Amino acid sequence: MAERLSQSELDYPFKLLEYFNGFRVSKVIFSACELGVFDLLLLSQKPLSAELVAQELGASVDGIERLLDVLVGVDILERRRTDRTTSCYSGTDVANLYLAKGSAKSLHDMIIYQSQTIYPLWNNMVHAVREGKNQNEKTFGISPEDIFQTIYRSEEEMLKFMGLMNSTWILDGHDIVTAFNLSCFKAMVDLGGCSGALARELSKAYPSSSVTVLDLPTVIQTARQHFSEQDDTIVFQEGDFFGGDIPPADLYILARILHDWKEDKCVQLLKKIHACCQPGGGVLLVEALLFENRRGPVMAQIFSLNMLVQTEGKEHPPSQYSNMLSFAGFHNVQVCRTGKSYDAILAIK
Amino acid sequence: MAERLSQSELDYPFKLLEYFNGFRVSKVIFSACELGVFDLLLLSQKPLSAELVAQELGASVDGIERLLDVLVGVDILERRRTDRTTSCYSGTDVANLYLAKGSAKSLHDMIIYQSQTIYPLWNNMVHAVREGKNQNEKTFGISPEDIFQTIYRSEEEMLKFMGLMNSTWILDGHDIVTAFNLSCFKAMVDLGGCSGALARELSKAYPSSSVTVLDLPTVIQTARQHFSEQDDTIVFQEGDFFGGDIPPADLYILARILHDWKEDKCVQLLKKIHACCQPGGGVLLVEALLFENRRGPVMAQIFSLNMLVQTEGKEHPPSQYSNMLSFAGFHNVQVCRTGKSYDAILAIK
Repeated sequence: MAERLSQSELDYPFKLLEYFNGFRVSKVIFSACELGVFDLLLLSQKPLSAELVAQELGASVDGIERLLDVLVGVDILERRRTDRTTSCYSGTDVANLYLAKGSAKSLHDMIIYQSQTIYPLWNNMVHAVREGKNQNEKTFGISPEDIFQTIYRSEEEMLKFMGLMNSTWILDGHDIVTAFNLSCFKAMVDLGGCSGALARELSKAYPSSSVTVLDLPTVIQTARQHFSEQDDTIVFQEGDFFGGDIPPADLYILARILHDWKEDKCVQLLKKIHACCQPGGGVLLVEALLFENRRGPVMAQIFSLNMLVQTEGKEHPPSQYSNMLSFAGFHNVQVCRTGKSYDAILAIK
Repeated sequence: MAERLSQSELDYPFKLLEYFNGFRVSKVIFSACELGVFDLLLLSQKPLSAELVAQELGASVDGIERLLDVLVGVDILERRRTDRTTSCYSGTDVANLYLAKGSAKSLHDMIIYQSQTIYPLWNNMVHAVREGKNQNEKTFGISPEDIFQTIYRSEEEMLKFMGLMNSTWILDGHDIVTAFNLSCFKAMVDLGGCSGALARELSKAYPSSSVTVLDLPTVIQTARQHFSEQDDTIVFQEGDFFGGDIPPADLYILARILHDWKEDKCVQLLKKIHACCQPGGGVLLVEALLFENRRGPVMAQIFSLNMLVQTEGKEHPPSQYSNMLSFAGFHNVQVCRTGKSYDAILAIK
């Protein structure tokens, strides 16, 4: 994405055609994931023919063969000829690590959410840009007042969204919690901490701190049921950081929370946090930070459009968060860009 | 797309996340095109602020600003600061040449079709792979016997599809018609020649040959109404190459026709063409050719999945076409790969 469109595009628009084709490459990977291709290839522990893959997944041989061949073309699968007429497919290390369901860094749940919820939402991007508002009603036929009533509109959708958050922090959590040395904060509360994946990374990095996940009662119940771990070192607590009380703590984490809401609502929340925060305590914001000149990173720019089509918020450059934090009474704002999908901002009371 | 997924992806999956994000980059470009962003910026002949663009296009400033910023991020637009608070946007040469509607090599119509028809179809790829058949019914609620009854299900859809074909040959037509020296063929007929764009390229390259476009009556009527040019050197003729007569000629062109149909139907058509063809005449197939080992090109592999989700056919390697041609009685099969989206195969009676 960082490649510049060169002058040679004027002779033939290879890069532009690649961009046009982007949705098809996404859907090839997403569809293979939904069908269970990567799980099957990992579990089988040996290369499989298209016929066997199709049979195991209850799919057509012709369809599976075309799908597997694109995945070979983009280097996600490998194909080896086993005899004169048969080829067999296996996952690359990258596929086994990130695309299979049970693997240590599985992005399976992120993919399911992107494929089944975000992809159809983006089909209404023209309307979102025209109207300047999210397209939950046009896409899913429902438009309650609160965007999370849409996101959590069924148990299935709640599980999918929590899966998305979970795989995000399995991937990016370690970099985020180590962006600053947070060992001085003994009581940490992850507000809207969802499945607890980021809280677990905090607990791993700072074993002498207590880490609490505060989220809506139904979210906490689902987290306990589907995402809790044996010997979990984190505590789940039911609450509502907008409508209810916020427990006292030394450090509050707001990871991908502020980007959901308009700035006045964000400032209101930060003020409330400031009031509960222990003196010398702080707040850690985790977001995809735009450059100050808004010329990138492309991922953050795209996330900002995603916020348009799905929420009430947007992505900001650090100065914007800094202003909100100062306005709420925080100081000593420090920014750490990770160079990956999410960045961190620490501010002190 | 040709970049290999490297070992460093195991540390952090930058390339994989880019693939996941592909659908959003596609939709940013598609949405800007549908909203008329590129046309406005080209016509204005000076950089415009987000406010002005929003006002002219009847869209929200916030939405437009986020959209334009991603386009700057991927180098399709340029942004310059005009004073302390305002930035203005303009199209790059690439945007002006390929993305604006009226430009010489406009891909506008290709984008509209991809955004409005292909993008929703691909949302049913999982079903297509499972069932091994197209998803016109699930996507558009209709499933007539003939796929072209779906593709041409309304005047609007027919125009969109013809626009897609038209921009394809405006981009790739010249390379295709000059892949072989065809000057010895005096009477050329483009079977299923649609808007006539490829026929025009033939006529330009071989001015001493006659070029006829044969297509279904409604297609020819629409072509005459919407795609004919003043002093057009090509002739439009109503017909049906499956059900009706094929006029005698020295060269028949089948451009992106065979990939729509199962092989027995293709052979049947090639036999019929062979019977009408003048001795010493030939047939020119234009398709995206797979490598013999099916490991690429990625674009052809993806087209083959597109054929699964939309038609009854698939993409093939040259040997497959060569077999069909030999079976129908043609010989001297020559293959020319252009290195771009489409390739050419010439065979002689």
